[in-house]
Amino acid sequence: MRTEREKMIAGEMYNPNDEQLVKDKEAAKRFCREYNLTDDTNYDLRKKMIQSFLGKTGKDLHIESNFRVEYGYNIEIGENFYSNYDCLLLDICPIIIGANAMLAPGVHIYSATHPIDPMERNSGKEFGKPVKIGDNVWIGGRSVIAPGVTLGNNVVVAAGSVVTKSFPDNVVIGGNPAKIIKNIEVK
Amino acid sequence: MRTEREKMIAGEMYNPNDEQLVKDKEAAKRFCREYNLTDDTNYDLRKKMIQSFLGKTGKDLHIESNFRVEYGYNIEIGENFYSNYDCLLLDICPIIIGANAMLAPGVHIYSATHPIDPMERNSGKEFGKPVKIGDNVWIGGRSVIAPGVTLGNNVVVAAGSVVTKSFPDNVVIGGNPAKIIKNIEVK
Amino acid sequence: MRTEREKMIAGEMYNPNDEQLVKDKEAAKRFCREYNLTDDTNYDLRKKMIQSFLGKTGKDLHIESNFRVEYGYNIEIGENFYSNYDCLLLDICPIIIGANAMLAPGVHIYSATHPIDPMERNSGKEFGKPVKIGDNVWIGGRSVIAPGVTLGNNVVVAAGSVVTKSFPDNVVIGGNPAKIIKNIEVK
Repeated sequence: MRTEREKMIAGEMYNPNDEQLVKDKEAAKRFCREYNLTDDTNYDLRKKMIQSFLGKTGKDLHIESNFRVEYGYNIEIGENFYSNYDCLLLDICPIIIGANAMLAPGVHIYSATHPIDPMERNSGKEFGKPVKIGDNVWIGGRSVIAPGVTLGNNVVVAAGSVVTKSFPDNVVIGGNPAKIIKNIEVK
Repeated sequence: MRTEREKMIAGEMYNPNDEQLVKDKEAAKRFCREYNLTDDTNYDLRKKMIQSFLGKTGKDLHIESNFRVEYGYNIEIGENFYSNYDCLLLDICPIIIGANAMLAPGVHIYSATHPIDPMERNSGKEFGKPVKIGDNVWIGGRSVIAPGVTLGNNVVVAAGSVVTKSFPDNVVIGGNPAKIIKNIEVK
Repeated sequence: MRTEREKMIAGEMYNPNDEQLVKDKEAAKRFCREYNLTDDTNYDLRKKMIQSFLGKTGKDLHIESNFRVEYGYNIEIGENFYSNYDCLLLDICPIIIGANAMLAPGVHIYSATHPIDPMERNSGKEFGKPVKIGDNVWIGGRSVIAPGVTLGNNVVVAAGSVVTKSFPDNVVIGGNPAKIIKNIEVK
């Protein structure tokens, strides 16, 4: 029999009040609370805390407080990850971010969603869709990345964007919902 | 003679620096500070704190930190209320939310506004308009609900929406300003 | 030889990992952490802390937690400054705000930006553009002001706006990107 955690990660309807998942979320809350209270000029300690908690990380990373995740183990970040203040990653399903990502303050990335039908939604069951972000992506301040989005390499997301669909390599996107603003000529 | 608090709740121009209102706001700040520092895995304690502070609540609710309100006593939430991180409710006028509400991270609901005319605004006087939200409403992450808005039952607000006017039952809305994206066929 | 700090303030490409700038940022982090933990009903103490830290302030001001800045010394605010919760000012270049400003919750003002070209961006070098805001400006909740923006006197920024270009005196702006919604007849 498959666990609720397995269903969740596979993007199927699952029960978020499952005993194991509640434990996992509580572990993530405790981690985030401790991390966010840790001296934010102690870069090495903070880096090690993140490296030991997230699913996969690179050697170099820097994440400001308040950093919040739902589980943590569904998050993979590449080399040279940087996030400014108040990054929130709801990692019901995998959130996979390539190398050299730069996240401005207040970026939210959601892989969690709910049924549109009110009776189904009130059942408490929910589901997710993975988010994949390429290499060398810069996400502007206060942007929201919705469940199921894939962004290519070198994408620049303008500040305040709400990204509801996928975009290919080498574009600047912006707006709500985000659209292509211009192409990037990569040298 | 009517008090400033009475004028405020009635939606008339009032003085937010009134002695009683300053006390009320300070009580709300102390409550929020204490609530937000309370162990976020102690669900029962947190629930009781909210139930004893807000104007009206149901038997079941769950609100993550950081939760912030202006007064608290102008907030009514129905049964099975859930709010993820960083919900902010500026309850100058009543903010009334029905049963089974689900608020994603970072939802702001404002019933507070100011005069457009700069001289009037600089007088420091301000006013509010109530916000009413029906049953079974899901408000997506980082959405803003503006003063005076009424949302019907079963409404789904897409992530990142800025809701500046009212909407009827059974619609998905989204964008800035929010518009109807589709109708929901309730089973 | 010009310092990295001088280049930064002048809007030229600079190295944010410069030893002096890292020290300056750490001082700002320590200030913000201490400020945000200070009793938020002790108005006088909080006012004095801000006055002794920012580049220039007026006699009267009130800033709620969590207030965050990048350096602080590039921020000038006029008389009667008010900011509600969670204001974030990235002051790589000057952020200059006139008298009687009212900032609703969650306003972000960025004077920091990065190269669009991924290789240039990955070099770690970056640059800024100053932000100037006139007198009697009201910035609605959750608005973002982008680098290089100038706003005239009496401007009202609707909640949830993403302001990517400059606007003259006496207009209400809103949307993403923000546009003029109406003119204000100043009495």
